[in-house]
Amino acid sequence: MSRKVTIVEVGARDGLQNEKKVLDQSTRLEFAERLAKAGVKNIELGSFVSPKWVPQMAGSAELIREALKRRDQGIEPWKHMDISALVPNPRGMQDALEAGVKHIAIFASASESFAQKNINCTIDESFVRFQEVMALAKAKDVRVRGYLSMCFGCPFEGEISEGVVVRLVKKLVNLGVYEVSIGDTVGIADPAQVRRLGAKLVDAVGADRLAMHFHDTRGTAIANVLASLDLGIRTFDASLGGLGGCPYAPSATGNVATEDVVYMLHRMGFDTGLDLPTLIETNKWMTEKIGHELPSRVGKAGLLEVKPIK
Amino acid sequence: MSRKVTIVEVGARDGLQNEKKVLDQSTRLEFAERLAKAGVKNIELGSFVSPKWVPQMAGSAELIREALKRRDQGIEPWKHMDISALVPNPRGMQDALEAGVKHIAIFASASESFAQKNINCTIDESFVRFQEVMALAKAKDVRVRGYLSMCFGCPFEGEISEGVVVRLVKKLVNLGVYEVSIGDTVGIADPAQVRRLGAKLVDAVGADRLAMHFHDTRGTAIANVLASLDLGIRTFDASLGGLGGCPYAPSATGNVATEDVVYMLHRMGFDTGLDLPTLIETNKWMTEKIGHELPSRVGKAGLLEVKPIK
Repeated sequence: MSRKVTIVEVGARDGLQNEKKVLDQSTRLEFAERLAKAGVKNIELGSFVSPKWVPQMAGSAELIREALKRRDQGIEPWKHMDISALVPNPRGMQDALEAGVKHIAIFASASESFAQKNINCTIDESFVRFQEVMALAKAKDVRVRGYLSMCFGCPFEGEISEGVVVRLVKKLVNLGVYEVSIGDTVGIADPAQVRRLGAKLVDAVGADRLAMHFHDTRGTAIANVLASLDLGIRTFDASLGGLGGCPYAPSATGNVATEDVVYMLHRMGFDTGLDLPTLIETNKWMTEKIGHELPSRVGKAGLLEVKPIK
Repeated sequence: MSRKVTIVEVGARDGLQNEKKVLDQSTRLEFAERLAKAGVKNIELGSFVSPKWVPQMAGSAELIREALKRRDQGIEPWKHMDISALVPNPRGMQDALEAGVKHIAIFASASESFAQKNINCTIDESFVRFQEVMALAKAKDVRVRGYLSMCFGCPFEGEISEGVVVRLVKKLVNLGVYEVSIGDTVGIADPAQVRRLGAKLVDAVGADRLAMHFHDTRGTAIANVLASLDLGIRTFDASLGGLGGCPYAPSATGNVATEDVVYMLHRMGFDTGLDLPTLIETNKWMTEKIGHELPSRVGKAGLLEVKPIK
């Protein structure tokens, strides 16, 4: 099986949108540049959602336009970057197209209650919206990634049926997304569950169509990455420093930290293309900007420095 | 393979001895009682080391005598407890015997440099001391557990030979310890390494003779527990809340948190005999006593409360 692993950096979107402090445009741009210098190629940089709902993502259009300009001009380190954005609805898709975006993500839910609460419609209704977005994407040659949230449990429904998750993943793939990111949105998944559901998903759509999106809320994210690797899955979402937090448990950890995932992967002999010391440096920089310690373990400990006894 | 897992609670010794704040006797006793109420059966309660070197462990003899008295009188929750103590040398063993201890642990190192620095002798010399301790233990019918530290890497030597680790584990077993706790003392191990070294150790002495002692310094501890479970290992050391910290990386995490290990195990269907809500309550109590937040993820997040949307 391949030793190459793709990390999708979601700190600039999923991470920042769950932080209290709103970062200004130039800080967000510098964040992306620092990530690029650390070797990040896949970054979700913003969201085409109303700033009324998500003030942290206000100005995403300008930010992404600026980043795309640098990339298209072949400026280092931007020229290697694949920049994407979250698009919640056809209106957002129009804005994304205007900003020149060629890679988007759509956001579905495996929980009926969470769909209701988060996107204000039923799961079926959300798929009608997705069809419109996909049609616009197809017409403009835009690649579309799918998120499926609450796949391992939901704060409003409890357990989520694995059959429902498999059905919705297939539905997203049939809609034309190139990959589905399987979200443990509340960070409750355990590796046995990941192996069980993951095997069904690999059977249904193949490991190449799957990314795993773990939260480290209860400390299982890195073990869940391991369980996924064993299934042949090679794409993982992660957030620099573990930026984000968990809206369902105020002082708790949210997104798994990029440094923590990369540390384990590199020591296991996997290749991510990322530079861990630069990620740790970016963690320190972001800690200053965001104003609190980030939960990444590796960010706090650093790499082991071997100093022989004199 | 068995679904029963044994947790050896080391927070009261390995945890507290690495905390800056020194807790008084009555707080240490209450800590043990709270752990017992949470179902903890195996606890390392103190160390027979000079208070000059480890002030946090001063008064361990009195503490353990008090705990043993309650246990022997059949007082709840003490009567279910297996209370052990760390014994560094024959002198400490005399003190332990005087205190009525029937279960001790000895501490070896897989790194020559760390042996030199930590116990001030060569590895071979340390085994000569162990022979004396073992002879005293045998004469008084005392059970002996072995720790082998720095098995996955060392801050003074870097990589540690797997051959050396296997040889020393066999040596400890031949010496008469009933179990060897394999320490990732600096928290750098990854699951591939655990699978590789773990398989050799299982071959050499059998899974029943092995416990794993992981530190979560770089976020891999829970994944390493998973890798060990896959090898058939069923005993894990853990520290309530992740009490302890890492002497080699000041702001970093040390011992893996009991709550985090237990959370994963229970969700995977393993039985530990521990009550997670009581552990989380004990975390909150200890946070007050020790004066800082504990690193456990589960301690911060709690269990998922399902609250349907009204």
